Amino acid sequence: MRATVLQEAGQIRLVDVPDPVIEQPDDALVRVSLAAVCGSDLWPYRGQESFTPGDRMGHEWVGFVEEVGADVTRVRPGDLVLAPFAFADGTCRHCRDGLFTSCPGGGFWGGGNDGGQAEAVRVPFADATLVPVRGVDADTDLQRRLLPLTDVMATGVHAIRLAGVRPGETAVVVGDGAVGLCASLAARRAGAGRVILVGRHLDRGDLARRMGATDILSADDPATPHLVREETKGGASGVAECAGTQSALDLALDLVRPGGTIGSVGVPNGVDRVDLYRLFRHNITLRAGVAPARRYLEPLLEDVLAGDIDPSPVLSAEMPLDAVATAYQVMDARHAVKIALRP
Amino acid sequence: MRATVLQEAGQIRLVDVPDPVIEQPDDALVRVSLAAVCGSDLWPYRGQESFTPGDRMGHEWVGFVEEVGADVTRVRPGDLVLAPFAFADGTCRHCRDGLFTSCPGGGFWGGGNDGGQAEAVRVPFADATLVPVRGVDADTDLQRRLLPLTDVMATGVHAIRLAGVRPGETAVVVGDGAVGLCASLAARRAGAGRVILVGRHLDRGDLARRMGATDILSADDPATPHLVREETKGGASGVAECAGTQSALDLALDLVRPGGTIGSVGVPNGVDRVDLYRLFRHNITLRAGVAPARRYLEPLLEDVLAGDIDPSPVLSAEMPLDAVATAYQVMDARHAVKIALRP
Repeated sequence: MRATVLQEAGQIRLVDVPDPVIEQPDDALVRVSLAAVCGSDLWPYRGQESFTPGDRMGHEWVGFVEEVGADVTRVRPGDLVLAPFAFADGTCRHCRDGLFTSCPGGGFWGGGNDGGQAEAVRVPFADATLVPVRGVDADTDLQRRLLPLTDVMATGVHAIRLAGVRPGETAVVVGDGAVGLCASLAARRAGAGRVILVGRHLDRGDLARRMGATDILSADDPATPHLVREETKGGASGVAECAGTQSALDLALDLVRPGGTIGSVGVPNGVDRVDLYRLFRHNITLRAGVAPARRYLEPLLEDVLAGDIDPSPVLSAEMPLDAVATAYQVMDARHAVKIALRP
Repeated sequence: MRATVLQEAGQIRLVDVPDPVIEQPDDALVRVSLAAVCGSDLWPYRGQESFTPGDRMGHEWVGFVEEVGADVTRVRPGDLVLAPFAFADGTCRHCRDGLFTSCPGGGFWGGGNDGGQAEAVRVPFADATLVPVRGVDADTDLQRRLLPLTDVMATGVHAIRLAGVRPGETAVVVGDGAVGLCASLAARRAGAGRVILVGRHLDRGDLARRMGATDILSADDPATPHLVREETKGGASGVAECAGTQSALDLALDLVRPGGTIGSVGVPNGVDRVDLYRLFRHNITLRAGVAPARRYLEPLLEDVLAGDIDPSPVLSAEMPLDAVATAYQVMDARHAVKIALRP
């Protein structure tokens, strides 16, 4: 089959690799029907994060089960399935706490594991990892609405949960990439009355409004912190930091009120300065965390199927898997929010 | 009157200064009856924190009201009073939230304000700041039991609250200075079944046990993290970091479980590295905060008066105010946990 690998920084290749096979009785083989490029894929691509040449790529994908191991009972061949960006055994102490991303036996798609920007994936712990989508027409449109759940929408939900946004409150989201847009949607889903999105792509305003943002401010405008503090009467109780960069974290600190909380979900990239004294001086809570996406999949799936949320607008373009190298170039140049790939 | 000033690093002087007077109608004048040297006083003393030559010193003190301004109604001349280490107006948005240390009109004792290592203090916002102690014999022994409430005991309570310690849980406290010892007591008060105190002064074991610690481990023993993770089945849910140093914060990260919380109350000193990726990777919450001590004073006062807690053992020595320079030297050499000063 064909799978995407990172050969060296800037060099994405679609290469022939051996077809995956069932290795363990709790494995499943899934044929990928739709995958995506994630902002965090760009970091090794840009050489800003270490990788091993030949690493498989892609952790956002949905597909159809092709074959299951002898012990798999919850998913069946033919099922459309969602996979969170991390697999986990579902039985360890951390999984039982809902912290699937800390499962010692688990892992992330890509790298030395199968990646989702490929024709197929071997899924360990299939019963624990995969969520089947049944009783609906598993068409392309549905797949587009579900694909963001596997990472960016779950991560947006996690950001809002970490930030402790409560119904009726004004939520502030820093970062207008796919995660920030999904966090805006998640804030509305959590009952936020207003969602102030602070970002660097003001041309994404229409998209941001479709995704739930009520106010859009520029991260680069020096008046923004003052405006936010005025609108929130002294700073936001909860700020969702959805970029993982130094400037986003610093800005979040400018926007949060004393006693407030920063929920930080962007993979930290080049963040070498956390101002502990500033947190200390005003009792600001920092809750950084990779989203345990698996725990959010079922409720999000329900909401998508009920038509209550639709995160598909973050997929601003679609290309065939053949064009994966181009997709990375376009994402890298920020000409797309997120690109869906069809094998 | 006489007041302690920091003339230059290492140079503590008891000098003559003008007697304080009522300046505002909500001021009170309090004659100090017992004060203390705090671990955080040592940082400017050692030149590890900036100060202005001549800065007043001391933020832990109790005393008797001598005179009140025209608008003061809650405290009366003759009252024994507790003062938190920060004064606050009691009416602003942050004070109403219980975050007295973020009051824009408030401040800390010492520096350009009156300090507690002195014969008297002018107290702004006296009604909001001071807590009168009535209906009991205001003797020396009671003053010793109450003095720690003004900072280290309130800070210990804050650490345990930030760390989210729940009844029946095992609490882990890093740092066996006065705050760490008080946090141990606070953990027991919060219902912790076990309190593991990790510190550098194993000779303080008896004192630590009197203050509620059930297990005492060395911060310098490389086996300690493994032991704690074993005893807590994977790491503590809540770790109270009570030193404010880089090594204490790093150790707290070694002891907390995935999904757990570090409550950090030591004034950050030389902490230039907060490993955001490590917080992120395992969803660890960092709650750093200066204790809004005022909010804890009444309930702690009740507990002391009822005989439920007695933090006075942290006052390991007592000297006349005349000997304040010696007191700093003894504290600096770690020959005392905390020294009480009697004007």
